[in-house]
Amino acid sequence: MNKDNNQMDKIVSLCKRRGFIFQGSEIYGGLAGTFDYGPYGVTLKRNIENLWWKTFVNDRDDMLGLDAAQISSQKIWEASGHLAGFKDPSVTDIKTRKSYRADHIIEDAGFVAIGLTAEEMSILIKEKKIKSPDGNDFEDVEFFNQMFPLNMGASKDSADVAYLRGELAQGMFTNFKNIMDSIHPKLPFGIAQSGKAFRNEIVAKNYIFRTREFDLMEFEYFFDSEKQDWKNVFEYWREEMYRWIELVGIDKKLCHEIEKLGPDLAHYSKRTIDIEFDFPFGQKELYGLAYRTDYDLNKHQEASGLSHEHLDEETKRKFLPHVMEPTFGINRTLLAVLSTAYAEEDVSEGKDGSDIRTVLKLKNNIAPVKVCVSPLLKNKEILVIKAEEVYKNLKKEFTKLNLGAVVYDDGGNIGKRYRKQDEIGTPYCVVIDFETTESDGCVSVRDRDTMQQVRIKLEDVNEYFVNKFN
Amino acid sequence: MNKDNNQMDKIVSLCKRRGFIFQGSEIYGGLAGTFDYGPYGVTLKRNIENLWWKTFVNDRDDMLGLDAAQISSQKIWEASGHLAGFKDPSVTDIKTRKSYRADHIIEDAGFVAIGLTAEEMSILIKEKKIKSPDGNDFEDVEFFNQMFPLNMGASKDSADVAYLRGELAQGMFTNFKNIMDSIHPKLPFGIAQSGKAFRNEIVAKNYIFRTREFDLMEFEYFFDSEKQDWKNVFEYWREEMYRWIELVGIDKKLCHEIEKLGPDLAHYSKRTIDIEFDFPFGQKELYGLAYRTDYDLNKHQEASGLSHEHLDEETKRKFLPHVMEPTFGINRTLLAVLSTAYAEEDVSEGKDGSDIRTVLKLKNNIAPVKVCVSPLLKNKEILVIKAEEVYKNLKKEFTKLNLGAVVYDDGGNIGKRYRKQDEIGTPYCVVIDFETTESDGCVSVRDRDTMQQVRIKLEDVNEYFVNKFN
Repeated sequence: MNKDNNQMDKIVSLCKRRGFIFQGSEIYGGLAGTFDYGPYGVTLKRNIENLWWKTFVNDRDDMLGLDAAQISSQKIWEASGHLAGFKDPSVTDIKTRKSYRADHIIEDAGFVAIGLTAEEMSILIKEKKIKSPDGNDFEDVEFFNQMFPLNMGASKDSADVAYLRGELAQGMFTNFKNIMDSIHPKLPFGIAQSGKAFRNEIVAKNYIFRTREFDLMEFEYFFDSEKQDWKNVFEYWREEMYRWIELVGIDKKLCHEIEKLGPDLAHYSKRTIDIEFDFPFGQKELYGLAYRTDYDLNKHQEASGLSHEHLDEETKRKFLPHVMEPTFGINRTLLAVLSTAYAEEDVSEGKDGSDIRTVLKLKNNIAPVKVCVSPLLKNKEILVIKAEEVYKNLKKEFTKLNLGAVVYDDGGNIGKRYRKQDEIGTPYCVVIDFETTESDGCVSVRDRDTMQQVRIKLEDVNEYFVNKFN
Repeated sequence: MNKDNNQMDKIVSLCKRRGFIFQGSEIYGGLAGTFDYGPYGVTLKRNIENLWWKTFVNDRDDMLGLDAAQISSQKIWEASGHLAGFKDPSVTDIKTRKSYRADHIIEDAGFVAIGLTAEEMSILIKEKKIKSPDGNDFEDVEFFNQMFPLNMGASKDSADVAYLRGELAQGMFTNFKNIMDSIHPKLPFGIAQSGKAFRNEIVAKNYIFRTREFDLMEFEYFFDSEKQDWKNVFEYWREEMYRWIELVGIDKKLCHEIEKLGPDLAHYSKRTIDIEFDFPFGQKELYGLAYRTDYDLNKHQEASGLSHEHLDEETKRKFLPHVMEPTFGINRTLLAVLSTAYAEEDVSEGKDGSDIRTVLKLKNNIAPVKVCVSPLLKNKEILVIKAEEVYKNLKKEFTKLNLGAVVYDDGGNIGKRYRKQDEIGTPYCVVIDFETTESDGCVSVRDRDTMQQVRIKLEDVNEYFVNKFN
């Protein structure tokens, strides 16, 4: 657990400076726990999400997509146990009126909070004289539900209260029957979903790590627990998750597997592992893999009164499938990718003074800009005409093959452009110089990571980059 | 305005039967105004959204993406006028307690409601003895705000109330300054966004047409109103919208342009047109194009106290850009696409009795399944082995080139499979029969729309379909 808040500050600063991520509602002082993704951020986020959907849905034979509504019936959240149990302990500073997570306050003071009731926590805080960060006493601990309620329609009737979903999983469980009845998939198969979930966190913190509105990618993989040993299914998906981690460009060496045991293991799960990552602010949960048995289908079968049983056509056996659940936070993926990719390098090469370049070493598959094309000088018409021609041809090819963004940049001098594209994470910069037009008919291609340049013939430029990104 | 509620029922039924769209929270009796998109629905929706993003963002040089938070500060919605003005008139049946849109109740009774105050509407309803659909009297008319409020964090302070966004546009306006400061784009340029918006409609109706949670795609195109005549910018985007309508497969002949005039023209707009579509339930708004002048940037500049002016580098003139706003509802696009594509055809070919096939004539670019591969008979191993081989090769090629879904289907007999794939909108079915393995070495390719079959050599199958979808 290496904390480096300095690196965190640098990533936050780069993301704002270069248009990746802004504080939500920023011009009005910001709204805690919300973030707006700017042009490069939204492209990076879409690239990650599309890569996940392609990998786990499109490229497979056994996965079906779903896009359930974000607003859902209170009956779903009663059946799932969220309305009764999805609560965090809250304490409020008596003077500043700021609220904190009671368990975090207790643990930060060096005591253990797991398993304590609200009353026990209140007593502990008083006995151990634990104060707020502003040095004040606390009010009593209260459990606070994290679900956001919404009044639906003009009605003020509490029966018409619905909820913003607190997780994606219930959407897959409550549509299991719809999907079985319409598509009739054979077991094993998964239902995959990508979208927003909402938790009214008492304290939103650590940038895009813990927010009140967040993006998840997740699937529920249903199987016959009599035909398949759950341990094998678990192992299979654990390996697939690590394959994804490498595919998207997260440093596997910074990942740690945590077996959830005792009070940390959810009541619905027979086995859960968290994959934690060394974020700059410490080792925290990145992904989870949970074997949820048939707990959820059982609960919804009971509460809805509708059979959710699957009929095995061969044996005529009726049963509830069991489920394996790999969960991937998009925002946490993005933060782990940025943490992996962020680097500062001394490029002074023996010259006086230090010269540090900041670079995002993003993988080609997710980089928001793939290639930047420039004329060496923006005021030399012969260079500009050729650069525009190279740009247009390459953009046309990338557009046709849907390979990602090619940009044209003639701002500042060439050194500044390289630094800018390094910070955006653009893998290649193409420069048209006087040699291009006067002697060798080649462009210069600079590699972001090695900073080495090669000369590529004008007529080979498109093919050279299509091979890099296809 | 051709109403065909019969056709609407048929589309709803097909969408449920085939796994396109389910009622939200369906197993618990449904939650009005919400829908869950099943496997084919989510693929169709993603295909539409990705095509829009590719067309208007990726393939252009002048458009920047954004993904702002769905939860945003009340200060944004104060400045935009939504908290004061985003209201609909509501009346409640005194007996059933059901609420209705007062203006719709008045208009359905043959009177005019535009411009009336709540009091005037209440008087009109009483004087004209307008009753509820259940034959009862109404309570007085009240204006009801459509924004969904959320309490943020454990605080009960009204200062900590935030809102689910009622539209996408404010996200682009409140990030205009962030984007100018980080990316420094030159005018004209657009900021594009795709995502959910929420309106607490008094009455949700007409399937996915008017829901409390919905998906929009929209951009704000900023330009210098002294350098560009807004009328030309308006015309340009009007044409681009029709180009999109053809691209996505909406019947242009069913589209009607409505000039918003008088009280129908929003106070912030100098000119707005709606593109209405002949939905099965009547002619209703599909898309909108609004010239919003500099109204929004002005409002946010005033309310935030931060300059939003753009500096023209040549003339050193400082000014607020003007903005053109094309809006595309995703769910309405999907419904217009389904309405255009839905067909019933008599295929009895002179045989006794009628034989009607239902078919979705979706365009190749958005069809959720591109090609279905089958063996003629599922119990003939020689056909199955060859069919699996053709499927695997084609799927591999489509996966590599990211061309969309290829599926394998051996359920039922071949006639039923065709009918099923027709209803899903799959453009081509490939069948491996005894001729394939015994004589001509060709597969049969059936065209969804013409139902004609051609024989394609086994070794040419991949190339044949890559050309159809690339």
